Amino acid sequence: MVKVENTKSIAMSDSIINLDHGDPTAYEEYWRKIGDRCTVTIRGCDLMSYFSDVNNLCWFLEPELAEAIKELHGAVGNAATEDRYIVVGTGSTQLCQAAVHALSLLAGGTEPVSVVAAAPYYSTYVEETTYVRSGMYKWEGDAWRFDKKGPFIELVTSPNNPDGTIRETVVNRPDDEEAKVIHDFAYYWPHYTPITHCQDHDIMLFTFSKITGHAGSRIGWALVKDKEVAKKMVEYIIVNSIGVSKESQVRSAKILKVLKETCTSETENFFEYGREMMKNRWERLREVVKESDFTLPKYPEGYCNFFGKTLESYPDVTVGVFHVLTQAFAWLGTKEETDLVNDLRRQKVMSRAGERCGSDKKHVRVSMLSREDVFNVFLERLANMKLIKSIDL
Amino acid sequence: MVKVENTKSIAMSDSIINLDHGDPTAYEEYWRKIGDRCTVTIRGCDLMSYFSDVNNLCWFLEPELAEAIKELHGAVGNAATEDRYIVVGTGSTQLCQAAVHALSLLAGGTEPVSVVAAAPYYSTYVEETTYVRSGMYKWEGDAWRFDKKGPFIELVTSPNNPDGTIRETVVNRPDDEEAKVIHDFAYYWPHYTPITHCQDHDIMLFTFSKITGHAGSRIGWALVKDKEVAKKMVEYIIVNSIGVSKESQVRSAKILKVLKETCTSETENFFEYGREMMKNRWERLREVVKESDFTLPKYPEGYCNFFGKTLESYPDVTVGVFHVLTQAFAWLGTKEETDLVNDLRRQKVMSRAGERCGSDKKHVRVSMLSREDVFNVFLERLANMKLIKSIDL
Repeated sequence: MVKVENTKSIAMSDSIINLDHGDPTAYEEYWRKIGDRCTVTIRGCDLMSYFSDVNNLCWFLEPELAEAIKELHGAVGNAATEDRYIVVGTGSTQLCQAAVHALSLLAGGTEPVSVVAAAPYYSTYVEETTYVRSGMYKWEGDAWRFDKKGPFIELVTSPNNPDGTIRETVVNRPDDEEAKVIHDFAYYWPHYTPITHCQDHDIMLFTFSKITGHAGSRIGWALVKDKEVAKKMVEYIIVNSIGVSKESQVRSAKILKVLKETCTSETENFFEYGREMMKNRWERLREVVKESDFTLPKYPEGYCNFFGKTLESYPDVTVGVFHVLTQAFAWLGTKEETDLVNDLRRQKVMSRAGERCGSDKKHVRVSMLSREDVFNVFLERLANMKLIKSIDL
Repeated sequence: MVKVENTKSIAMSDSIINLDHGDPTAYEEYWRKIGDRCTVTIRGCDLMSYFSDVNNLCWFLEPELAEAIKELHGAVGNAATEDRYIVVGTGSTQLCQAAVHALSLLAGGTEPVSVVAAAPYYSTYVEETTYVRSGMYKWEGDAWRFDKKGPFIELVTSPNNPDGTIRETVVNRPDDEEAKVIHDFAYYWPHYTPITHCQDHDIMLFTFSKITGHAGSRIGWALVKDKEVAKKMVEYIIVNSIGVSKESQVRSAKILKVLKETCTSETENFFEYGREMMKNRWERLREVVKESDFTLPKYPEGYCNFFGKTLESYPDVTVGVFHVLTQAFAWLGTKEETDLVNDLRRQKVMSRAGERCGSDKKHVRVSMLSREDVFNVFLERLANMKLIKSIDL
């Protein structure tokens, strides 16, 4: 099996470490080992046109990327791709805005459509739905507290960013035609969570960044059931950026293809590699947090269809088919009345304030996807904070 | 010198030809000849992070692209880059929206800032400033007719899209601090227009698409004098798409570097190649239009500093240092009372309606940047329309 290399920790230097963004550089080592199989070569005369496939509703989607996406979902079993439109975006960030735009437009009313998400939520949703001050939709905050009449959109992230909970809609309006849902499945992959079933919703968002770690490519995709919604999303992306980088599309197609090929490999399975690394990091983090004032969510164990199907026949594989969530972010809390983001900042650790996620000062979101040396420094500094507390007592 | 190959015209088939978009596939042939010098190779482990340079205000801008941009402007002499911030965008489309957003935000008022452009204008400006129904800015149409009080933004495209005129601001409010201008210099390059002076404005937009023909890469850049404006543009792009494809950035950096190197070449000068091709196409188009009911704008001759500086010492070079505009679009008109976009559609030629550009039914915008065979079919169909008219008479 692929071994996770624990790069030796760099000395506790003075440098600030930034765990605010979920920059997924943790996976670089794996792709270095994969070598030339993911290398793309693009000639000067390639990929010049705006158009990828004039016969596709999403005419700026490279056909080989569409194919790779369908094959990967098929192999992992995490989402249905049959009878759906694939819309490619400049990251799922652009797609989320395209979907909110499309649903608001199709709601057809004069009042802005409400947009909600259950707290704690991905803080960027707030910025995405407010920064242009659109008259078409309005951020209404925590879905748990939402009781307005009229059309609304609920953003459901599962596993949730920041706290890793498995989510369904919380606004309970069955058969309400004005209720629309966007499912953000950025983290519904086997290295983060047990794949318990194949998702099958109206609008499902995925991002290349968080699957393989290629954040710099800015590639995301939406699986969309309704043709009109897909069409309006495409129209949004045309006006917003006239399509999506072809270079990023052909490269992500190649990498996703290799990813799919490794799915059945005993020695090179990316998801197994990622799962091992994340499990190792979470165990080490829980060890530091143990018997301290810090808190972390507890996750139940689940049976993973993916590992069950693909890896049970390999005796050497250490990843179990039953496993718990190993989310890309730690939702770190404290039992004390303190401003945790500032406490961490004093230790030169940048994190995202819980308040930005609709929660409180006692929580922060910390990326678990940094390079190994940075993660080690983070653990050292956290242990140091714990130590300072003990001395205080 | 580099010869323009006139690919044999395809037979007058039944297929529709799309000259609505300015898809710049005309330049593929040149890049094919340039060969491996523009080939980029990207390994699986490259370009994974969101960040390109954490010390740059525009932290998602690849340093090699910034360097290539500065060197190219230096060699061509079309725009000043000293003491400016470079902001990279997913095409200049995203940057134009980022600039409108930034200027509106900094205007700080409660009323939407007016956005205007002198007709005929780039039709996409209308869509860009209306589709999200922002409360921050409002499209107010033709700048020639604009007389509202309060803060406003004038979009100045020079040479203008669609009609190729050389433009300056038309809203005359000298020393008005509420007057802001965004200069779109997509076509201020030597293959389209004489480079008469080095532009030096507050916000200048450029796009890779229209320089080299690499529209699929979705790369544009802004040269911005004011730090606060640049900062707000960067913030817009972060929320809109968390930066810009790294693959496209490294590829465009490489191609722009080669472009700059050819600037002083007697045999491979891209701008000379482009200029020859465009001149040839315009001459053939004018030949068809001659003694018909169609009209085309007339352009004055100008001295091109670029060709003057770089090519005068090469006796074989046929491009003159005095030349007229050979715009990427033809602003085709008709003397008759007719709906020209429909007339062309009946001949299976798709073009952009003059009305969408703030003009009238008697004008259309036709791309001059198609592949050679498509351009030839266009000329044949246009000649055919002329013939039909003669028979009618």
